[in-house]
Amino acid sequence: MAKEGADMTEETECMIDKNSAKDAGSVEAPGGGKEMRAVMLAGFGGLNKLRVTKKAMPEPQDGEVKIRVKACGLNFLDLMVRQGNIDNPPKPPLVPGFECCGIVESVGEKTKGFEIGDRVMAFVNYNAWAEVVCTPVDFVYKMPDEMTFPEAAAFSLNFVAAYMMLFEVANLREGMSVLVHSAGGGVGQAVAQLCATVPKVTVFGIASCFKHSAIKDSVTHLFDRNIDFMQEVKKISPDGVDIVLDCLSGENTGKCLSLLKPLGTYILYGASNTVTGETKSFFSFAKSWWQVEKVNPIKLYEENKVIAGFSLLNLLFKQGGCSLVKKVMDKLLCLYAQKKIRPVVDSLWALEEVKEAMQRIHDRGNIGKLILDVEKSPTPLMASDSTETSEAGEEEEEPEGDNDNKERMPFIH
Amino acid sequence: MAKEGADMTEETECMIDKNSAKDAGSVEAPGGGKEMRAVMLAGFGGLNKLRVTKKAMPEPQDGEVKIRVKACGLNFLDLMVRQGNIDNPPKPPLVPGFECCGIVESVGEKTKGFEIGDRVMAFVNYNAWAEVVCTPVDFVYKMPDEMTFPEAAAFSLNFVAAYMMLFEVANLREGMSVLVHSAGGGVGQAVAQLCATVPKVTVFGIASCFKHSAIKDSVTHLFDRNIDFMQEVKKISPDGVDIVLDCLSGENTGKCLSLLKPLGTYILYGASNTVTGETKSFFSFAKSWWQVEKVNPIKLYEENKVIAGFSLLNLLFKQGGCSLVKKVMDKLLCLYAQKKIRPVVDSLWALEEVKEAMQRIHDRGNIGKLILDVEKSPTPLMASDSTETSEAGEEEEEPEGDNDNKERMPFIH
Repeated sequence: MAKEGADMTEETECMIDKNSAKDAGSVEAPGGGKEMRAVMLAGFGGLNKLRVTKKAMPEPQDGEVKIRVKACGLNFLDLMVRQGNIDNPPKPPLVPGFECCGIVESVGEKTKGFEIGDRVMAFVNYNAWAEVVCTPVDFVYKMPDEMTFPEAAAFSLNFVAAYMMLFEVANLREGMSVLVHSAGGGVGQAVAQLCATVPKVTVFGIASCFKHSAIKDSVTHLFDRNIDFMQEVKKISPDGVDIVLDCLSGENTGKCLSLLKPLGTYILYGASNTVTGETKSFFSFAKSWWQVEKVNPIKLYEENKVIAGFSLLNLLFKQGGCSLVKKVMDKLLCLYAQKKIRPVVDSLWALEEVKEAMQRIHDRGNIGKLILDVEKSPTPLMASDSTETSEAGEEEEEPEGDNDNKERMPFIH
Repeated sequence: MAKEGADMTEETECMIDKNSAKDAGSVEAPGGGKEMRAVMLAGFGGLNKLRVTKKAMPEPQDGEVKIRVKACGLNFLDLMVRQGNIDNPPKPPLVPGFECCGIVESVGEKTKGFEIGDRVMAFVNYNAWAEVVCTPVDFVYKMPDEMTFPEAAAFSLNFVAAYMMLFEVANLREGMSVLVHSAGGGVGQAVAQLCATVPKVTVFGIASCFKHSAIKDSVTHLFDRNIDFMQEVKKISPDGVDIVLDCLSGENTGKCLSLLKPLGTYILYGASNTVTGETKSFFSFAKSWWQVEKVNPIKLYEENKVIAGFSLLNLLFKQGGCSLVKKVMDKLLCLYAQKKIRPVVDSLWALEEVKEAMQRIHDRGNIGKLILDVEKSPTPLMASDSTETSEAGEEEEEPEGDNDNKERMPFIH
């Protein structure tokens, strides 16, 4: 499966072309405006829709900061965006990515609270995976001095989402129990750490077997993804659990609801079960919408149960939730300063390695967060020795050479 | 519409017969066991299914107390029970009623924590509307010295339900807003008082116009039941509200969900819209189940919303929630001692007046709680001068003379 340079597609060549220009920083575009490197999604579909290209560098508007990006977070949602498998996706071509961190390079007029040189982390409504990002100050937070850039890129989305689900939506208190699917992922690890800040909280985690030794100390009980978790949880806690955090959706929802204690809360914060192959038809989102089990409020009344949905990005960018998120971020930075929480970084990838990184999160190979490190050079291609396989490769619609198992060694943090 | 004694039905005579025996307390039954007066529901249906009869007096089992009842609470749920319009109703004949208060007359073996003479309030899984009630100590709470029996009968269910919805399910905090349907009812008034214990909470209340002068000081904004409350709330709070408490269900659910702010919580705690006439077919419950709008969890995810159901009686009697309720009751008794909350009693009725009392709650004529006062003598029948009309009389299936507008003057507390 090893790929030689001679087999490289045009895109891969293009990436390497950009690499050589990288250390020179931003370049002057033919028109006189500055350019930057960015990951571009040419259209919805498979990994082959992604490439690193040059793009006009944005300048900050009123109330915005311009960030020289050091690192970006890669989330499962980015896969769903790549496939167009979300509600009302923007039209490609687009630059993906919802979070990044770096150094303030300039500020727009009327921009208050930030100065050139500030180390910051930020949420962005797309366009995060680039060398430079401009975003309103409402979505920007100062980084603690002791926080590294990879940590900052792993911090914002996962910890804010975990905190808001546990404490704003579900009201986690002493002695409660929490079940988290994908305990080994970025949100899962943040949930585990935040649960540990409350006395006597029991955390049931579900994760693939190969992650167990790495994450077993972060949760109280750990189950393999392939077993009947319902039965295992009930063996330990016959009454069920107080909070279920589910990013899978689909058939899972009904099972999880039945695991809730009275007054328990089920929170859906993703729908990764809708991603089964590398590419999806454009009807996937509609299909997943209809296939998920609808809930009758009268059943909730009889059973004393709570069902919630949580989307941090919708809260931030569609629903005006930035001041609430700011308060949560302040609390999280306190916990970070007290060393009660610390982001778990799975691996660092160059922008040019975004496909490999996406494949890793698709295969659920990660423990903690995948980071795009803007200053990292791509690791040379190597023979594939991965023992992990894509569970859903059979659904690929556009098999191209570029999607083969071309492996690089990730830089494990 | 005046009814003369000559028109009395057999039941009404029976009631009056019991009245004459009432002051003598419990009577010796023919078999030697003691008897007591109780309200009996002969079968599911209209008001004519209710009568006051003699019944063998219960004796306390292990862990139970025997309560000489002074007053009982009447709730909208009792109407739904009468109609058989609940999930898995018990088989009639049965004694209705879920809450009462009185004095401990004896205790069972192994019963701890209560002594003869204690003034107590209690939840009961049916059988509350009787002169004597036996119930496990798990559901019994000591009354504060300064609390009257009518207050106690108005306290338990309404305040526990209101507290748990606001603070256990929805996590009410400073600055939030709450919309409560039926603001004039027992739960509505409890919700308004509990909201006033938290700084800067805005309460939107909906109630029939004729209640407005009586309850206008208890809420921030009061709307008439017949107007478009959605529009009125949005005029004042364009972003919507944080918490909606709905006891109506049906079409209302979708409207209420759309009124929620991001991260807002909708709680369904009753389905009084399913009660439209005096009697219902046995398919009513199933019908209401299917007619209520189902909720798609993915929609909750996109909109960041929470939907919950709350049934205190299911929590207590089906789901083992008594220790949680005990903690809530302790907090409520603290608030009562601090004079921050005080039950609102609408009116007191003799057991023999249960039909009139039920008609009043059916017509939503009450402001606060209706109480059955076990020691009260029925008020003599009087000419009907009521200006209130049953909104749904046209659905009556079994019109009988006994159901006509026979009015007594309620004793307004």
